[in-house]
Amino acid sequence: MAEEAAVREQAEVVRRLKQDKAEPDEIAKEVAKLLEMKARLGADEGKHKFVLKTPKGTRDYGPKQMAIRERVFSAIIACFKRHGAEVIDTPVFELKETLTGKYGEDSKLIYDLKDQGGELLSLRYDLTVPFARYLAMNKITNIKRYHIAKVYRRDNPAMTRGRYREFYQCDFDIAGQFDPMIPDAECLKIVSEILSDLQLGDFLIKVNDRRILDGMFAVCGVPDSKFRTICSSVDKLDKMPWEEVRSEMVGEKGLSPEAADRIGEYVQLHGGMDLIEKLLQDPKLSQNKLAKEGLGDMKLLFEYLTLFGIVGKISFDLSLARGLDYYTGVIYEAVLLQQENNHGEDSVSVGSVAGGGRYDGLVGMFDPKGRKVPCVGVSIGIERIFSILEQRLEASEEKIRTTETQVLVASAQKKLLEERLKLISELWDAGIKAEVLYKKNPKLLNQLQYCEDTGIPLVAIVGEQELKDGVVKLRVVATREEV
Amino acid sequence: MAEEAAVREQAEVVRRLKQDKAEPDEIAKEVAKLLEMKARLGADEGKHKFVLKTPKGTRDYGPKQMAIRERVFSAIIACFKRHGAEVIDTPVFELKETLTGKYGEDSKLIYDLKDQGGELLSLRYDLTVPFARYLAMNKITNIKRYHIAKVYRRDNPAMTRGRYREFYQCDFDIAGQFDPMIPDAECLKIVSEILSDLQLGDFLIKVNDRRILDGMFAVCGVPDSKFRTICSSVDKLDKMPWEEVRSEMVGEKGLSPEAADRIGEYVQLHGGMDLIEKLLQDPKLSQNKLAKEGLGDMKLLFEYLTLFGIVGKISFDLSLARGLDYYTGVIYEAVLLQQENNHGEDSVSVGSVAGGGRYDGLVGMFDPKGRKVPCVGVSIGIERIFSILEQRLEASEEKIRTTETQVLVASAQKKLLEERLKLISELWDAGIKAEVLYKKNPKLLNQLQYCEDTGIPLVAIVGEQELKDGVVKLRVVATREEV
Repeated sequence: MAEEAAVREQAEVVRRLKQDKAEPDEIAKEVAKLLEMKARLGADEGKHKFVLKTPKGTRDYGPKQMAIRERVFSAIIACFKRHGAEVIDTPVFELKETLTGKYGEDSKLIYDLKDQGGELLSLRYDLTVPFARYLAMNKITNIKRYHIAKVYRRDNPAMTRGRYREFYQCDFDIAGQFDPMIPDAECLKIVSEILSDLQLGDFLIKVNDRRILDGMFAVCGVPDSKFRTICSSVDKLDKMPWEEVRSEMVGEKGLSPEAADRIGEYVQLHGGMDLIEKLLQDPKLSQNKLAKEGLGDMKLLFEYLTLFGIVGKISFDLSLARGLDYYTGVIYEAVLLQQENNHGEDSVSVGSVAGGGRYDGLVGMFDPKGRKVPCVGVSIGIERIFSILEQRLEASEEKIRTTETQVLVASAQKKLLEERLKLISELWDAGIKAEVLYKKNPKLLNQLQYCEDTGIPLVAIVGEQELKDGVVKLRVVATREEV
Repeated sequence: MAEEAAVREQAEVVRRLKQDKAEPDEIAKEVAKLLEMKARLGADEGKHKFVLKTPKGTRDYGPKQMAIRERVFSAIIACFKRHGAEVIDTPVFELKETLTGKYGEDSKLIYDLKDQGGELLSLRYDLTVPFARYLAMNKITNIKRYHIAKVYRRDNPAMTRGRYREFYQCDFDIAGQFDPMIPDAECLKIVSEILSDLQLGDFLIKVNDRRILDGMFAVCGVPDSKFRTICSSVDKLDKMPWEEVRSEMVGEKGLSPEAADRIGEYVQLHGGMDLIEKLLQDPKLSQNKLAKEGLGDMKLLFEYLTLFGIVGKISFDLSLARGLDYYTGVIYEAVLLQQENNHGEDSVSVGSVAGGGRYDGLVGMFDPKGRKVPCVGVSIGIERIFSILEQRLEASEEKIRTTETQVLVASAQKKLLEERLKLISELWDAGIKAEVLYKKNPKLLNQLQYCEDTGIPLVAIVGEQELKDGVVKLRVVATREEV
């Protein structure tokens, strides 16, 4: 009815426009009215054409994706447990004020819940801030935990590259006052173990320290107030050439060209223990207290990483800055060195697959008395890893099973449903993974086909002869062997 | 600074009110100004008194709760896999319109996201509607899947009884066109297996059928238009005595007292195969097509449940109605028969711990052409089970381990950090779960104490003598045995 009325109204407007000598701005008004009406009609149609989709930037995981996901999770969890971590979980939303002031500019990407009367809530943006809130709330000063859960960012999704609005984070963190760089080294060992276990190909872990960066900025002549914003510019070096970053520093951020050039010399440096030693001798850096502290700890870190046998995978890289504000010491990021691609098709473009660092101030932001709990942690970029493995699996001929069923209980003749149900019940009770077709009289061929399709290795065949003999025929699907 | 200024402004207002002969409405204005100022000052104070909590009706899971949670999940998942289920996952939020019109009155309990420009989103209320959306969207007509995830309801939380606003559901569903009652019977077998595996004590699974209920309403003289609302009243029989339910039917819902009394006679019936046979002979019910269908299927179900060996756990109960609108056939609900309580303290009040039924129309609501996919499923009430197990664990003396660490790498003397790190790295690389204290020179006693506290069974002790001999001393923490 509403539609009819609108159509009549529309016809009337058109008639008037044709007949009357309407003024130009009246015409404009009428056109606007028409457009509005059209939109309204469109919306009415839309009501019936229900859009069947998941929200923007999200996806369902079907059985195949879940099989990959569970493989990856179990490798990661095994590693976290190998290192003695406990596990915690927190709610998917937090009080809005818990997240306020923790993410700087990125706060605009936080999903808020509608105010339905009650508390103002937001979906968690990462697992680190809820972890810090958990520590402060429960006055925990000492814990090694992992947390695997989904986080939410209203970002521009790039789903083919594994960037979603709902995505998993796999975090491992060590909180507590300890001797320097031992927990930090363990985090790097964990990254190395996980990337090796998942067989993602060759990788490199870049390491730097916020104190070295800040010291470097100081000796290059960056004013204190510009440290964080210049740090953000440096962070872009993995996506932009130096020249562009330099012009951002000088043009947008008002840094002197001389200071920028001095930074430019430092940020191209990367290496190992030799570079650390060289910088410890650097006439300017060695005079800066922060830089000296950072370099001293970096040296210690490299010693520990040598003991852990992974120093060959590590690059001390002065261009590594990391986006988040809350880091206070060592920072790191793991990148895959090359993307294997068997078919020469588009390869998934993969950036960093793990990252983290030390954040000694975050828990104190939640404590009423500002008591600090030093923390260091790492987050595994699981969605990118999924993307790689999914693509690799698609390219290969490997058939992935989505169930673990060991045996199908089948019948050779009709009217044996009761016998099938009795047998499968015994199998279930004995802990055997078994299925049966939900048909009274399934054809044997269909039952065998089902095994082929789903990868069930064995069929237990109930037949009249077998029932007489009190036995069950067991058949191996692949070889057709029978016992 | 802002505070000081406000205080000064406030003093000024008070001074003027005292000195000047202000007009009444001017006074009112000034008072309003004062109140506003007070509120502003209050808000400023609030900024510093940050409330450290999780949102209403939610909780963190600490390592101990997680250990229980993972035990329960692994038992449930093992059962689902034993029955050949695949696993899927869906986003935590759906388009608002996906959830619209699926939950009747309960829709007011749905959490909506704030409109931040983009799609209108809501947090999922259960896993069944997202499952139906997933089937329709991917045109899947045949699947057996489980899904374990959190769902969200803005209900009144009763956390001691395991009722939260954020809680887990563990759903198992079979979708597809099959011969009657075989998948339905499997769902009941699964409930029985899980409740037995978790050793929750004695339980009973009540079973009924929406068609039997509707047939019963018809023969009792309930008008068609009142079927659903009278069904809701019947659903309250587990919490209210019949007299109250009857007066709701007659008083609030305008049912004739005669019809109510006829219902009253039926809903007190419960039993097994004998009751089914009796009702199949019932002069009124047996004339009703729906009831006859339902009773015929119920008979078949009991035959299958006998084959599955669980008929002793099942009660055909005419008072079982289930809240949700979308059920179309068999419905069921499992209740624990008694709460074990070792210490005679307050026992957790536990209602149903599992429930489900057949819903043949839901997927069709999402399909553009209304194509139906028959479904039957069960949801395990995991939070209530957690509550019981948590309380039981607290009452017992059992100490639950929250890590799986097998060995602590310790040192007997100072200055052996390098040796400890080298050894633990070898252990990790060999897949052994190992920890080390993050101290350069920890005391042996502290290291042994750490093992006692966390339940680590073995200590590998590095000492100077052992280094010379090229060995490591392995000590069993409990017995102090050394090798």
